[in-house]
Amino acid sequence: MKSLPNRGHIGIFNRSYYEEVLVVRVHSEFLGKQKLPPKLIGKKIWSERFEDIRNFEQYLARNGVVVRKFFLHVSKKEQKRRFLDRIDHSEKNWKFSSNDASERDFWDDYMGAYEEMIQETATKESPWYVVPADNKWFTRAAVAAAVIEALASLDLEYPEVGKEKLKELAMAKKKLLK
Amino acid sequence: MKSLPNRGHIGIFNRSYYEEVLVVRVHSEFLGKQKLPPKLIGKKIWSERFEDIRNFEQYLARNGVVVRKFFLHVSKKEQKRRFLDRIDHSEKNWKFSSNDASERDFWDDYMGAYEEMIQETATKESPWYVVPADNKWFTRAAVAAAVIEALASLDLEYPEVGKEKLKELAMAKKKLLK
Repeated sequence: MKSLPNRGHIGIFNRSYYEEVLVVRVHSEFLGKQKLPPKLIGKKIWSERFEDIRNFEQYLARNGVVVRKFFLHVSKKEQKRRFLDRIDHSEKNWKFSSNDASERDFWDDYMGAYEEMIQETATKESPWYVVPADNKWFTRAAVAAAVIEALASLDLEYPEVGKEKLKELAMAKKKLLK
Repeated sequence: MKSLPNRGHIGIFNRSYYEEVLVVRVHSEFLGKQKLPPKLIGKKIWSERFEDIRNFEQYLARNGVVVRKFFLHVSKKEQKRRFLDRIDHSEKNWKFSSNDASERDFWDDYMGAYEEMIQETATKESPWYVVPADNKWFTRAAVAAAVIEALASLDLEYPEVGKEKLKELAMAKKKLLK
């Protein structure tokens, strides 16, 4: 909410509030650390968070914000290959986090959380794009296509140039050519 | 959204997003200046804004934020008296805005907008208190009572003091008394 782009701008969020129904759900001890009043933590909390997300994105849509969401789906096998690559090549070591690797133990829990998140928060106005991401060239082409489609749907135009401005341009040209 | 108090803090909002269904509704030319895509401006816009407000306050409640809303209801007669007072006493001149006075022409429109706003956004979790405000002492007592009631309902306690801290206190006392 605090980081939304201004009107006419584009904002890119990596992870965002969706972590509230992903890592917090897979590791419920994180929920305990959010200092929520205990009576607010019940079985309904995930469906309430999904609803809050849908409502927030509906609010954005009603205010002219176009939302597109991308889930980059890397396979378990490809993830293993990338992690080993980061370990074996010293120039990639900085990218490696042992925490990322240990999270692989929760792979199935994450897949379940992702699936329900996408089912519960994909709407006509704020769709999810689930993009196969084992091949980076394909991921990039698919995301770029979706972004182009969204931009094209806005029917954007260059600002219209009035008589005054045209006169100004003609005068500037004349001066330049002299 | 950007100015919400942190957990454990109290925030006071004067006017707030409710202006979006009040002055913007009474003077619809303000709506035209919000640079919304034209297709989003229709008859439903006020009911959508009411829904967005209810949803946002529901989100706050689910995250442990206690919301209390106060409408200070000054009568048309008392408002006239206060405005004249601000004109007639030089030390109060700074308080007077001719814009406030000219808005009196729209009194009935505002009353209609207030009424619908309160009906549409008063919920169990985020109630509106409509407080008669011609007498300031009464307004203050009524608002203070509602705030006290809300605070009492939170069942707040001082942090529990552990053995270590008690020992520390005892040692400090001993030293002070020496």
